[in-house]
Amino acid sequence: MLAEKTFPVAISARHIHLSEADVEALFGTGATLTKDFDLSQPGQFAAKERVSIEGPKGVIHNVRVLGPVRPATQLEVSKTDALKLGVNPPLRQSGDVANSAGITIKNGERELAIEQGVIIAQAHIHMTPADAQEFGVQNNEVVSVEVESERPVTFRGIVVRVSEQFSLEMHIDTDEANAGFIQQQAKGKIIKSS
Amino acid sequence: MLAEKTFPVAISARHIHLSEADVEALFGTGATLTKDFDLSQPGQFAAKERVSIEGPKGVIHNVRVLGPVRPATQLEVSKTDALKLGVNPPLRQSGDVANSAGITIKNGERELAIEQGVIIAQAHIHMTPADAQEFGVQNNEVVSVEVESERPVTFRGIVVRVSEQFSLEMHIDTDEANAGFIQQQAKGKIIKSS
Repeated sequence: MLAEKTFPVAISARHIHLSEADVEALFGTGATLTKDFDLSQPGQFAAKERVSIEGPKGVIHNVRVLGPVRPATQLEVSKTDALKLGVNPPLRQSGDVANSAGITIKNGERELAIEQGVIIAQAHIHMTPADAQEFGVQNNEVVSVEVESERPVTFRGIVVRVSEQFSLEMHIDTDEANAGFIQQQAKGKIIKSS
Repeated sequence: MLAEKTFPVAISARHIHLSEADVEALFGTGATLTKDFDLSQPGQFAAKERVSIEGPKGVIHNVRVLGPVRPATQLEVSKTDALKLGVNPPLRQSGDVANSAGITIKNGERELAIEQGVIIAQAHIHMTPADAQEFGVQNNEVVSVEVESERPVTFRGIVVRVSEQFSLEMHIDTDEANAGFIQQQAKGKIIKSS
């Protein structure tokens, strides 16, 4: 069954969520995040702060910090990034960082080694209960998603996440975007797993 | 319809095929390619020679040269590479380089600017006529391919290429591999486009 209703696909570049303590560790005692611009999900914002991340095989600079602060620090990278850094993060839903990979986070002379918190974010679709009803899907349902492009791919094993707090949008990472020649705000379609 | 027969999936990292003239331009008059090891397709080999490629936004070193020499120089990169280099190569079948992107190729002090030759290789399946009969497909047929993994994707618009000279194998690039958490010699399955 092919749902006719579509949703925007947003590409998440590598980014980091920091705990309050880790913001202070990296930016100084009493430091807080400075909003640069709002993100599509209500309350979330891109901060002006950037960090470097360093693994056994490489370093990536200018990694965007997202706000607000979270209970636990979480770095979301692509598989391509992970290979460059030399780390092996698990595929996880956001917030599920137990026993994930570690990394070193740097801001100039300040440095912080985390034992866990590095994940590859599992692609998912945010939607409201009203959207879910229209799509005929439920919270945590696993679906496949088709995106049309010059190099079309179907993503399978995509989790639907339903909340009044969400705005309708699928989130994929840069590897998924580049594999499918997908640009920001491409349209996705749900294919129900049979 | 899901064919039961599977085939190995090979991941092609960025690489370059050089014309005889361009081998000499980059490695000196009279230079030839030195075989490092054989590739899976009969007659093809990885050469010991490496080059750097430089676009308006970045450079990538240690790009493997493949042999034997070809009538026209062709550089195959991923979309991720293309974004890093700042070039915009078209999605093409190997050999189809007319009006593709240009780039600068370097080997130490030697440098060569090509006006065309940079492509993103369209994923394809090499097979023999006997394989094609078993799969129930024909040369140039477009199919979808499923690869199982922890992050499963289906590649659509995949071209079947049939020749007695081929060995059964699908070729994808590193973006497609990383999006689908695919490792060398994963197994693919053809899903006939209906």
